[in-house]
Amino acid sequence: MASSALVVIGNEILSGKIIDTNTPFLISELRSLGVQLAEIAVVPDEVPRIAEAVSRVAARNQSVFTSGGVGPTHDDVTMEGIAAAFSVPVIRHPRLEALLRGYYEQQSIPLAERNLRMADVPQGAELIDGPDLRWPVVQMQNVFILPGIPEIFRRKFAAIRERFRDAPFVLRKVYVRCEEGPIGDPLEDIARRFPQVAIGSYPRMQPAEDGHRVLLTLEGKDAQVVQAAVDELLKIIAPHVVTTS
Amino acid sequence: MASSALVVIGNEILSGKIIDTNTPFLISELRSLGVQLAEIAVVPDEVPRIAEAVSRVAARNQSVFTSGGVGPTHDDVTMEGIAAAFSVPVIRHPRLEALLRGYYEQQSIPLAERNLRMADVPQGAELIDGPDLRWPVVQMQNVFILPGIPEIFRRKFAAIRERFRDAPFVLRKVYVRCEEGPIGDPLEDIARRFPQVAIGSYPRMQPAEDGHRVLLTLEGKDAQVVQAAVDELLKIIAPHVVTTS
Repeated sequence: MASSALVVIGNEILSGKIIDTNTPFLISELRSLGVQLAEIAVVPDEVPRIAEAVSRVAARNQSVFTSGGVGPTHDDVTMEGIAAAFSVPVIRHPRLEALLRGYYEQQSIPLAERNLRMADVPQGAELIDGPDLRWPVVQMQNVFILPGIPEIFRRKFAAIRERFRDAPFVLRKVYVRCEEGPIGDPLEDIARRFPQVAIGSYPRMQPAEDGHRVLLTLEGKDAQVVQAAVDELLKIIAPHVVTTS
Repeated sequence: MASSALVVIGNEILSGKIIDTNTPFLISELRSLGVQLAEIAVVPDEVPRIAEAVSRVAARNQSVFTSGGVGPTHDDVTMEGIAAAFSVPVIRHPRLEALLRGYYEQQSIPLAERNLRMADVPQGAELIDGPDLRWPVVQMQNVFILPGIPEIFRRKFAAIRERFRDAPFVLRKVYVRCEEGPIGDPLEDIARRFPQVAIGSYPRMQPAEDGHRVLLTLEGKDAQVVQAAVDELLKIIAPHVVTTS
């Protein structure tokens, strides 16, 4: 199954100055695309930490998304961090530089030398254009480098999202009225017999209005296999079940 | 400065089935305690991934909090993961077992053998009691193991929070009307001259009502040093400043 990772970069997230809305957005998007988000790392604006996280997750996931740290100021060090992860230098990309110069000229804004930092990318990075994008998405191998500002994060992700689409997840839910103890053994048994089905068990503090105390989720990519796991589970735990969906 | 890390454990977070409210809560709590949250990892319910994340962050932070994966079902493997991180076995804790047996007896609920999994902890773990806690907090070296259910996560954190209190953060804000390019060099200069002050620069897509396009934050533990950094910065960028706070 295609798996993915997210690396969020920014002291402002860790210190609570800015609430991270890109993570919930990406969780939801990847979900609807049928892509398994396997791990998330939130790291500060420090080159070694970014490099460590990116190299770790890029090696074991098909795709990696990064959020943040791509502006022109001293705390924008994502490009350096990703370059370090792949042991390449940061270079100034000629096409990005031309785009930046053209934009500042067109807007009649004086171009600070520092603004050209926005044209710096890890050596070997590619640019992905999109119809709604002023600036292309920068891709370094399997890492897609997105900015932290939520509007632009979303716009850039929208431009690349279809390339990640995979078979949809099939999710079944079983609500039970007992607590987790009595259903633990059956769940473990079903989990062993259906390795393709991910089984979750989520207890509540208080029973819900319909009387359920635990939500069980059974999920996979093959609807028939998921259904078979649900059927087998219900055979064993039927007396405890409130409802299914 | 005291630094801390958070490891969130759970497929339900990564798949978007449950929205993680423990992370924003802990960000806010640590902030108000003067503790720097240095990194966050969100990992699936898999022993090797939990072990990897916990051993990595426990080695370089004073304290680590984990959220989730501590119930009695097959997908609750946090204790095994943390034990693996410290290369110790999981053992059944006699006092936790006695507490569990007492609780089930008192409630006249039959105790499933599996419920006793809630008494399993990494060898060497200690228990922290609190006046509002039915179940103690489990501490393994510098790792504080908290459950995923938000109400219990909060109650358990409340019982231990004061032991982490450190000098408060001093945060100053400067709002500027230009974009990031023209202030980048002064910021970098101030950041170099005041290494104890963390300086952030957060641009907006559109100017705010008061005309500011960028929020600058200057932050540290020493109010005088932070004020000196603000004063020096204002000397250089005064023409761009909308307001400060």
